[in-house]
Amino acid sequence: MSNFIEDTIVALATPPGIGAISVIRLSGKQSLKSVDSIFHGKIKLSDALSHTIHYGRIISDGDKTIDDVIVSIFRSPNSYTGEDSVEISSHGSPLISGKIIELLVKKNVRLAEPGEFTKRAFLNNRIDLAQAEAVADVINSRTEASLKGARNQLDGMLSQKVQELRLSLINVSSFVELGLDFAEENIEFIDNSELLKRIQQIIHEIDDLLSTYSFGRVIRDGVNVAIVGQPNVGKSSILNYILKESRAIVSKIPGTTRDIIREEVSIDGILFKLFDTAGIRFSEDEIEKEGILRSREAIKNADIILLIYDTGQEFDNNILTEIYSLVHKERVIVVLNKIDLVRQKPTSDKICVSALTGEGMEDLLKKLISMSMGSSNYSEKSAIVSNLRHYQCLEKAKEYLGHAKNSIYNKLSGEFISVDLRNAENSLGEIIGVVTTDDILNNIFMNFCIGK
Amino acid sequence: MSNFIEDTIVALATPPGIGAISVIRLSGKQSLKSVDSIFHGKIKLSDALSHTIHYGRIISDGDKTIDDVIVSIFRSPNSYTGEDSVEISSHGSPLISGKIIELLVKKNVRLAEPGEFTKRAFLNNRIDLAQAEAVADVINSRTEASLKGARNQLDGMLSQKVQELRLSLINVSSFVELGLDFAEENIEFIDNSELLKRIQQIIHEIDDLLSTYSFGRVIRDGVNVAIVGQPNVGKSSILNYILKESRAIVSKIPGTTRDIIREEVSIDGILFKLFDTAGIRFSEDEIEKEGILRSREAIKNADIILLIYDTGQEFDNNILTEIYSLVHKERVIVVLNKIDLVRQKPTSDKICVSALTGEGMEDLLKKLISMSMGSSNYSEKSAIVSNLRHYQCLEKAKEYLGHAKNSIYNKLSGEFISVDLRNAENSLGEIIGVVTTDDILNNIFMNFCIGK
Repeated sequence: MSNFIEDTIVALATPPGIGAISVIRLSGKQSLKSVDSIFHGKIKLSDALSHTIHYGRIISDGDKTIDDVIVSIFRSPNSYTGEDSVEISSHGSPLISGKIIELLVKKNVRLAEPGEFTKRAFLNNRIDLAQAEAVADVINSRTEASLKGARNQLDGMLSQKVQELRLSLINVSSFVELGLDFAEENIEFIDNSELLKRIQQIIHEIDDLLSTYSFGRVIRDGVNVAIVGQPNVGKSSILNYILKESRAIVSKIPGTTRDIIREEVSIDGILFKLFDTAGIRFSEDEIEKEGILRSREAIKNADIILLIYDTGQEFDNNILTEIYSLVHKERVIVVLNKIDLVRQKPTSDKICVSALTGEGMEDLLKKLISMSMGSSNYSEKSAIVSNLRHYQCLEKAKEYLGHAKNSIYNKLSGEFISVDLRNAENSLGEIIGVVTTDDILNNIFMNFCIGK
Repeated sequence: MSNFIEDTIVALATPPGIGAISVIRLSGKQSLKSVDSIFHGKIKLSDALSHTIHYGRIISDGDKTIDDVIVSIFRSPNSYTGEDSVEISSHGSPLISGKIIELLVKKNVRLAEPGEFTKRAFLNNRIDLAQAEAVADVINSRTEASLKGARNQLDGMLSQKVQELRLSLINVSSFVELGLDFAEENIEFIDNSELLKRIQQIIHEIDDLLSTYSFGRVIRDGVNVAIVGQPNVGKSSILNYILKESRAIVSKIPGTTRDIIREEVSIDGILFKLFDTAGIRFSEDEIEKEGILRSREAIKNADIILLIYDTGQEFDNNILTEIYSLVHKERVIVVLNKIDLVRQKPTSDKICVSALTGEGMEDLLKKLISMSMGSSNYSEKSAIVSNLRHYQCLEKAKEYLGHAKNSIYNKLSGEFISVDLRNAENSLGEIIGVVTTDDILNNIFMNFCIGK
């Protein structure tokens, strides 16, 4: 596809703002020539070897020095994009990098769109589509776990597995299609029970991949935790204890609604987004309905609900029933707070804590982590699905394989089976970009930052 | 001095935050070896040539990939600092750059202090002290003019001029000192009138430099403009007109006091800091005293005062008298606003404007610029003093030369003259760092960003 990419693009590759240095990145056939037209150094960059660095000055049309810079040369195909590329390292001022980019744009270099460098790396077959998506995940990783997951995907663990499945499918397909070619001679290349067995095996492996998604999503996007309970049971104390204990507070984000405080925290490398639904009420009061709706929304969107009550309070089953009506039981942790106020630790199947003394809080954190991780036996070297798009492609593939199985059961013509197998193969191909459309690509890369 | 620098330093060199890439910079004897200990590439970096680029992976102790990176090698003396240096270009995530720096610190690399790379460039004689200071000015430049000024200084215009003056002084000194050596033989190597003439010439050139300071300060730090006047004369309208007209709003900074709004704007490349002293009152009222004090402070700190009154108002000389008691007359521009409300344009020596129609506003902007630039005939190739430290060193040098002149007039012993000339020479030397102390260096570099 690389023949279709004719223009040369430029963008600031480092975060905006003031720093020691900024890096401006170009990619495309005219990269070296374009920079040569504004660069005064010892040699012409067009004559320079790949992977070499050159000191010089960026000169404006009026022959004024904009900055002294270091220029790095990457020649096709040994660059990030696979094309000729140049990186200009200037003093770290937005004014200077802005001016340099402006000069280059005057030399017929185009401002890059979000993710366009990575898109070119994909189009030039430097990486596949799942790896390209992992680049954005690597950059946006905010916890150890999410970084490891993204790294795993960038290293091609998922791509490799998907490619294996595709090849198995292609193999099965080829027997079916051979059978079609020789249908008149009535030669069978694979019998139906063998065909079913092989398809079933692929479905089984897709199921394995699909089952990694809940864990993959947790490490990629984090876990939403709603802290729920009546007033004065110590919701905020428990929230504050968790924030303090985990030390590494990721960020403090102003509530999206007036009543809901959201805090982000990294525990054991996993990002927890804690929602203190301070405004939750279980009341028939008309005025409070708005607040209730919002709290219900928070509960529905949560992966885990911490239902807090305290030792001075009768446990109100109505609240639990209400919550169970909104989310699955398995997602609720019931916590009994303020056990420091009672002489004897209550015998309870609930988790008993004191946010004041810290008693039981470790059990609570452990429960939070184990509930988030699920039953996954995650290994660094195995494929994990963490991206909704990939999950949906796998589900589609599985669906087509289900159709294929039915066609075999119902003894339909081989053509039907063949079409389903092809569709399944295409769905898998979409994950790694063997099959793709402009829409898919645009959707993926528009969420990248500019310069990547 | 480079022999004294034994340790290797590391810092993030790009602005913090998320971007396509981050750059981590190391400098010092162990740079290549340290990176080698965490880097897996095709070759050992210690064996790599200067100014070459190498792809590889940063590996943690547990043999896990942290990131795939591009490493640039700069060998002493051909680096920014003059020492062996390495730049690691990783994915632009704070998590990743943090981890890489953490790994390097475990390998006995030290976190760099603010400005330490530039300080080393100075200590290793890559640049002089005035140029080192210009590096920070280049990075922090927010307007065209300030960037040009900083660039001028980084290119050594000031250093060159100061060095010329120092050499002239050393030349004069040597005659005086020769005279001292041969005092007993009563040989005179330079007569007093010639000595006076040469010293006077140097003083004259120092005066020329000193005179560039008001302009230098304007282009480096911008111009403080206080907008003053009674309520409802249109202070805010004029402010808003200027902001809109200049298009390039630099920033909007919340008022340092409740009553004073500060806006920053770049007009013709010069940074104007506009203070709308909405709270200004000229009243005897006890309660309003606090507000008045604050407004007075704003007026005193302003480089230019825009005194606004309107056509519907008798001109109140008391206000003008009050302002003249605070600042020099030449710093005040009197503006008559709302001329759209009167049939005939008033014949007035004041600047007549209408913030509503825009009439006269261009004259006002021109007046603001011409008053800011003063009588300077600035050229790109001439030295400009923009730094208070340099200004003070020049003043000190001038003072010592005055002493020397007096000693000659008073026919004092050549020893007195010699000491004064030496002192003047040292003051000039302080500007470019020929003479320096730890205190001076610490003061200068503590205002740098880390990584530069």
